[in-house]
Amino acid sequence: MYRAPVDTIAFTLKHSAGFAAAQAEGIYDDLGDDLLEAVLSEAGKFAGDVIAPLNRIGDQRGAVFKDGAVTMPPGWKEAYTAWAGAGWNGLAGPTEWGGQGLPWAVNAACIEMWNSASAAFMVGPTLTMAGIDALAAHGSDELKRTYLGKLISGEWTGTMQLTEPQAGSDVGLLRTRAERHNGAYKITGQKIFITYGEHDLTDNIIHLVLARLPDAPPGTKGISLFLVPKFLVNPDGSLGERNDVRAHSIEHKLGIHASPTCTMVFGDNGGATAYLIGEENRGMACMFTMMNDARLAIGLQGLGIAEAATQQAVAYARDRKQGRAPGMPASQTTPIIVHPDVKRMLLTMRALTNAARAICFATAVAIDRQHRAADEAQRRAAHERAALLTPIAKAFSTDIGSEVSSLGVQVHGGMGYIEETGAAQFYRDARIARIYEGTNGIQAIDLVTRKLPLSGGETVRAYINELRGTVAEVEASNDPAFGTTGHCLGDAVQQLDRTTSWLLGKIEREPDTALAGATPYLRLFGLAAGGCALAKDALAAQRAGNPGSSVAIARFFATNIANAAAGLAATVIEGADALSVPPDAIG
Amino acid sequence: MYRAPVDTIAFTLKHSAGFAAAQAEGIYDDLGDDLLEAVLSEAGKFAGDVIAPLNRIGDQRGAVFKDGAVTMPPGWKEAYTAWAGAGWNGLAGPTEWGGQGLPWAVNAACIEMWNSASAAFMVGPTLTMAGIDALAAHGSDELKRTYLGKLISGEWTGTMQLTEPQAGSDVGLLRTRAERHNGAYKITGQKIFITYGEHDLTDNIIHLVLARLPDAPPGTKGISLFLVPKFLVNPDGSLGERNDVRAHSIEHKLGIHASPTCTMVFGDNGGATAYLIGEENRGMACMFTMMNDARLAIGLQGLGIAEAATQQAVAYARDRKQGRAPGMPASQTTPIIVHPDVKRMLLTMRALTNAARAICFATAVAIDRQHRAADEAQRRAAHERAALLTPIAKAFSTDIGSEVSSLGVQVHGGMGYIEETGAAQFYRDARIARIYEGTNGIQAIDLVTRKLPLSGGETVRAYINELRGTVAEVEASNDPAFGTTGHCLGDAVQQLDRTTSWLLGKIEREPDTALAGATPYLRLFGLAAGGCALAKDALAAQRAGNPGSSVAIARFFATNIANAAAGLAATVIEGADALSVPPDAIG
Repeated sequence: MYRAPVDTIAFTLKHSAGFAAAQAEGIYDDLGDDLLEAVLSEAGKFAGDVIAPLNRIGDQRGAVFKDGAVTMPPGWKEAYTAWAGAGWNGLAGPTEWGGQGLPWAVNAACIEMWNSASAAFMVGPTLTMAGIDALAAHGSDELKRTYLGKLISGEWTGTMQLTEPQAGSDVGLLRTRAERHNGAYKITGQKIFITYGEHDLTDNIIHLVLARLPDAPPGTKGISLFLVPKFLVNPDGSLGERNDVRAHSIEHKLGIHASPTCTMVFGDNGGATAYLIGEENRGMACMFTMMNDARLAIGLQGLGIAEAATQQAVAYARDRKQGRAPGMPASQTTPIIVHPDVKRMLLTMRALTNAARAICFATAVAIDRQHRAADEAQRRAAHERAALLTPIAKAFSTDIGSEVSSLGVQVHGGMGYIEETGAAQFYRDARIARIYEGTNGIQAIDLVTRKLPLSGGETVRAYINELRGTVAEVEASNDPAFGTTGHCLGDAVQQLDRTTSWLLGKIEREPDTALAGATPYLRLFGLAAGGCALAKDALAAQRAGNPGSSVAIARFFATNIANAAAGLAATVIEGADALSVPPDAIG
Repeated sequence: MYRAPVDTIAFTLKHSAGFAAAQAEGIYDDLGDDLLEAVLSEAGKFAGDVIAPLNRIGDQRGAVFKDGAVTMPPGWKEAYTAWAGAGWNGLAGPTEWGGQGLPWAVNAACIEMWNSASAAFMVGPTLTMAGIDALAAHGSDELKRTYLGKLISGEWTGTMQLTEPQAGSDVGLLRTRAERHNGAYKITGQKIFITYGEHDLTDNIIHLVLARLPDAPPGTKGISLFLVPKFLVNPDGSLGERNDVRAHSIEHKLGIHASPTCTMVFGDNGGATAYLIGEENRGMACMFTMMNDARLAIGLQGLGIAEAATQQAVAYARDRKQGRAPGMPASQTTPIIVHPDVKRMLLTMRALTNAARAICFATAVAIDRQHRAADEAQRRAAHERAALLTPIAKAFSTDIGSEVSSLGVQVHGGMGYIEETGAAQFYRDARIARIYEGTNGIQAIDLVTRKLPLSGGETVRAYINELRGTVAEVEASNDPAFGTTGHCLGDAVQQLDRTTSWLLGKIEREPDTALAGATPYLRLFGLAAGGCALAKDALAAQRAGNPGSSVAIARFFATNIANAAAGLAATVIEGADALSVPPDAIG
């Protein structure tokens, strides 16, 4: 069973992710280590003690749809109520609406743990939190007064409604219709793949819905964002009549069975009452506020599942006895963890997981700096850093969630394929995170076409220079325990640098050539960034006099994983021509 | 829906896999292209028309266990009966027992197609065929007379029973007990994970069971192989009384739901009647006869699923419209296949699938040569070639089955996570193939410790020299359509060569150092071998005046996939030290 690795989480957050530096600079006011550790420790305890035990029954029973209502699995409502009641949903929410106003970085660390306990559980609050951000940033005072407190307390949950059958990655194709009506709006249409679109955890659900006004221009410039409550809210805050929106059905999915994925129907009886968020036709901008936080949160989901799968595989490999170590008598057997091949799998799981954590947390600290830094230039630089890292946090970490949970199945051997061990559930649950909140392909395209060009390429170059600084520190340490870590990471950063320059030169003139390499480039970025972060934490752990296994993990990552960098760079730069085949040739 | 790519299969079989060369040398007697193509075409038709339509209901309903009996999904018994009735089960079976005596290579091509149609269907006959091999090679005349004909016709099926709860990869730990009794044996014990251990497709099931005699030495040297029929067979061939063996339960698995995975109990009433195959305590040698063919067949399962997943993803990507190609007006949308990132996924799927096919088929041709070549030296060389390639065919192809089916899910976006599209079923079904018939880790260990040292390393060196020959041919072709294919493949082969030499120098003196790199080495081997095979087929297609997309696929593989070779070589050679951490450091 999952146990939250609170110390490791706190260490990575403080060191490679830069939380301690931000503290020292006063970004976090007077938030001290005591509070930080207390929060992480309590969140971890809740994750392990309350949420994790519900993950399996959530998978087995799943959310059940009947007559328009969704019944959550046994124990889920109680756990959610306790979780929200403890204030966890509002951890990073604004204090003026009852939130605790803690840094997003602290929230991110907690989101990891809750996802380790149950991704199907945590994906609901993830969307509520994203909705809170959008409403706080773009909502009218009246909307905030009516909805924000209840969303922050978790008494009500939120949804994020973009997708329609013909409009997935291409949101601009959506057709859901909004008409002006008595100072508000009426919405008619259908949405699909709506996470927690209907459930029985709370007595109201607040839908944030993208729709199109009759006179809106086509494409993404004609999309507006609306708030559509399941139950209308009376002026005194009590619940009024049922709005004209309903769940039509839920999907039968590969994983996260307890997360109800709904088809939503608006306007059976003339249209669902809706309230505009922000300005008409500016819905995409509001939605991007939600999406960036949600993307990091989905990266944390990949990370969380990877951590849980790693813990389970390590425990299994310590317990399961098969074969002998060299020189062992034939009558004995050894735990499989001593076999080099199994060790490779476990080290890969651990190193990838830790690298994903470092990247996600660094992204969260950048998000905090973008809101909290003292001057505008710092906030702007932090905003661009967060923007740069978000697609990597999302895509790299969720790829890792799948890869690590697949290795987890493999470590279990035949038992891994049997559902009762839980290894297969991690494998199934992790798969969605590479798809939703923007597929990982979309993340890679975002990285190459929108993030690399930020500030004329200076944003990414400044980041790469920081990585180079870490490489120099490793080399300067002259510690033989690092082996060839410095050399391997130096090469990875160099490959990232040259590939970045090459892409920056291609984006405008040959977009398809640049886009052809987007996915391997994102992977290369993740390897260089993750490898340097692990080395940075290892150096910090050495300085703190408690290196533990951090040097060994950093070394393994650099010399066994990050050395894929040169091949990836070659794929981006020299491989793109091979994609210029006509689509008909692919059959 | 799956359509068998008969032409592609025939081309790869004939060219890179060496079937045509073997034909020309007389290895296949007078087997002509007409017969070959007729067989492949009929097998493909059966796969697409009869088996494929049952794959989904097999997944949804699964095999059902009740009161010791297993009921197969609707339509499965009819399909199996028709399949066996058409003689497919005995395609490569010995003619003296009613088989058709066709080459294993032809059978392998058919096994790919049947696995594309339904892996859960084909894994049953795969084990029957392996049992036929073991019985034909090691069984007494009486056992052959009683069982071989019915197994070859498919009127009865076979199982392969090694695993016990404490004995998985470490077969030597098995405890199932055999006692001598009236000239035969009585077996008592329990086996787990027995594929098609019980079902209602046929009226008898012939279990091949590993067990230990009371006076047997410990470990693998004290294991004997027994034949245990579900129903005893009367002297006239009719079925007699029920034997003392039963299915206790079936597993709830991640995938291949229609394949009943049974826990088998022997000896509720004093012991199951059993007949020795081969000699006492020599069971492992007999079992290896089964396992090598079964390993290739499982490689073909990975390949088959990859092919089916690729076909479905390509069809979806041609149909699904999202976004615009550069320069397209905003009012239009394009099939997603034109987007470079999607194209990369589809080309990766196609190239990996074709590479796996080439390796599997080359292994099958080597197996044929080992049995059919004219002189002993040729048979011996072919035997070692088959032995060398088998772990690669198994592990590389099944890794590819998972990777390709995962990309298939990704191409479908959100729809890929919904079970109704079938993309997720491929992903679930494919995962087992990396585990059973020897985990892919075991395959890698087998490759490094047993196969590289064959003939003092000459077997692998001769193979690498052949790869070098292909590289030289590509370079000599001077065809600009190949781009940097020759250069990239040359590097991959060079990396394979140096890594092989390094490993050969380590196996004896530092086994753990060699074993640490076994898995990345096997991948490197697969990339070099697969890349050269695709180039060889492309050259052959050019010579035949019909290159189609073969050059583009070979080029993509070389310049976008096989260029991982240098990183993998570095992992094996320079990364091994990073694994010398104590197991306690991995947490």
